[in-house]
Amino acid sequence: MSYNDRPIGIFDSGLGGLTVFKALRKLLPEENIIYFGDTARVPYGTKSKEAVIAFSKEIAAYLLSKDIKLLVVACNTASSLALTEIRKISGVPVLGVIEPGAREALEGGEARRVLVIGTSATVSSRAYSLALKKNDASIYVAEKACPLFVPLAEEGWCSGRVAAAAAEKYLGPQKRKGFDTIILGCTHYPLLKKIISAALGPGVRVVDSAMAAARSAKAELEAGGLLRAGLRPPKADEFIVSDAPDKFKGLALKLLKIKTGKVKVMRF
Amino acid sequence: MSYNDRPIGIFDSGLGGLTVFKALRKLLPEENIIYFGDTARVPYGTKSKEAVIAFSKEIAAYLLSKDIKLLVVACNTASSLALTEIRKISGVPVLGVIEPGAREALEGGEARRVLVIGTSATVSSRAYSLALKKNDASIYVAEKACPLFVPLAEEGWCSGRVAAAAAEKYLGPQKRKGFDTIILGCTHYPLLKKIISAALGPGVRVVDSAMAAARSAKAELEAGGLLRAGLRPPKADEFIVSDAPDKFKGLALKLLKIKTGKVKVMRF
Repeated sequence: MSYNDRPIGIFDSGLGGLTVFKALRKLLPEENIIYFGDTARVPYGTKSKEAVIAFSKEIAAYLLSKDIKLLVVACNTASSLALTEIRKISGVPVLGVIEPGAREALEGGEARRVLVIGTSATVSSRAYSLALKKNDASIYVAEKACPLFVPLAEEGWCSGRVAAAAAEKYLGPQKRKGFDTIILGCTHYPLLKKIISAALGPGVRVVDSAMAAARSAKAELEAGGLLRAGLRPPKADEFIVSDAPDKFKGLALKLLKIKTGKVKVMRF
Repeated sequence: MSYNDRPIGIFDSGLGGLTVFKALRKLLPEENIIYFGDTARVPYGTKSKEAVIAFSKEIAAYLLSKDIKLLVVACNTASSLALTEIRKISGVPVLGVIEPGAREALEGGEARRVLVIGTSATVSSRAYSLALKKNDASIYVAEKACPLFVPLAEEGWCSGRVAAAAAEKYLGPQKRKGFDTIILGCTHYPLLKKIISAALGPGVRVVDSAMAAARSAKAELEAGGLLRAGLRPPKADEFIVSDAPDKFKGLALKLLKIKTGKVKVMRF
């Protein structure tokens, strides 16, 4: 096996990172990919920095042991809190979703007032504010935690009255603040894109960090000469979770139309 | 220290078990109590039997090492799935919340059609159906999972439009089925009692297993001659969590008006 045949490793607290997986799969059809979902400890967004770092390092070490060539942290909470710590133990490049999402939001130069929504942990870390202001110090950024969006997505209630009422409660008061851009700072949130957009009203650009992260992964592989040559088709995607593989498999199909095949279990 | 001075140990996946703690505190003011909340791995109700058993045994062993005289499993999911396994490793009596809740529902003999609501794991286990039918084989029981109620309670949204819409979505279709009794089969649900009751309409008796579990704990201590004599006041209650102690402390006060004092952290 040539070095470039080695897989991309990607992980999330659960199934939200599948939005990034899907974008990666689309953009890099020749690559081998391993996905890990920490379904035994999901969600991360309500937990402490210490816990998120400990969980993330454990998963990173596991994926690194599988001989990956790139590690994508497809969880905003883990990207916000644990990226530095993961990089310390990784011999391969490590990409998070925050920096690509922030750059995507600023592209075109029209963003002046940006609202970031995410989990409590992501918002508390102010990682998006820092990343945005590093690129453009004059930009106005506000962050708002929307903790119920993850369980809503995991329940499969991505539209309907409950989701709309929650979106209205979180985002209704933001409407009159003149935001031109909203960043979906959690990989689950693209599943709720329509109701989020509806709650904010027309004219607000919605930035989804999943596609941005996938583009960034492609650029990283290109720059490092690490793209896989497509002489043979890639192996079947590998999905591994820390608990309840059948539930993961069912939700991946239901919410994202991803056929995972058999999902393996790795308990820490 | 006399044997009866030893504390009662009580645990839950997070803060829902505080409803049982509060009932215990009220009923047994002289007892020493240690509470453990597994906030690093909450929720349990969406996870597998294997995971719930592993987490529960770990916590039980920890509380047993603190020399408790009684272990109360104040989590319906853990009570449904792990009670037998916990009893195998415990030298002291172990009480769950299912059996007391089922007995309470049948008291008075008027329950004929019972609806049990709980987490996905509790409902899948059919533990309440088994417990109810063991006591009265002729009773009609239906079970309904309401996974979003736990995150709603943890978000502090126990009333208002979102909670009402969720209750209506889960319970509205149950209205015309003629239930006379509903069991709140999750220790978080008493926090949402009003909107649950409103969604079912008048005339449905709501059974909350928290007070039933506390009564059962008192009876167990009495039967074993284990009640603490109140010569001196009990020690300050001890609260231990596996993550985010300040958040736990804040929610305990906000949702249940419990002043925990300093909350300790024990990471597994």
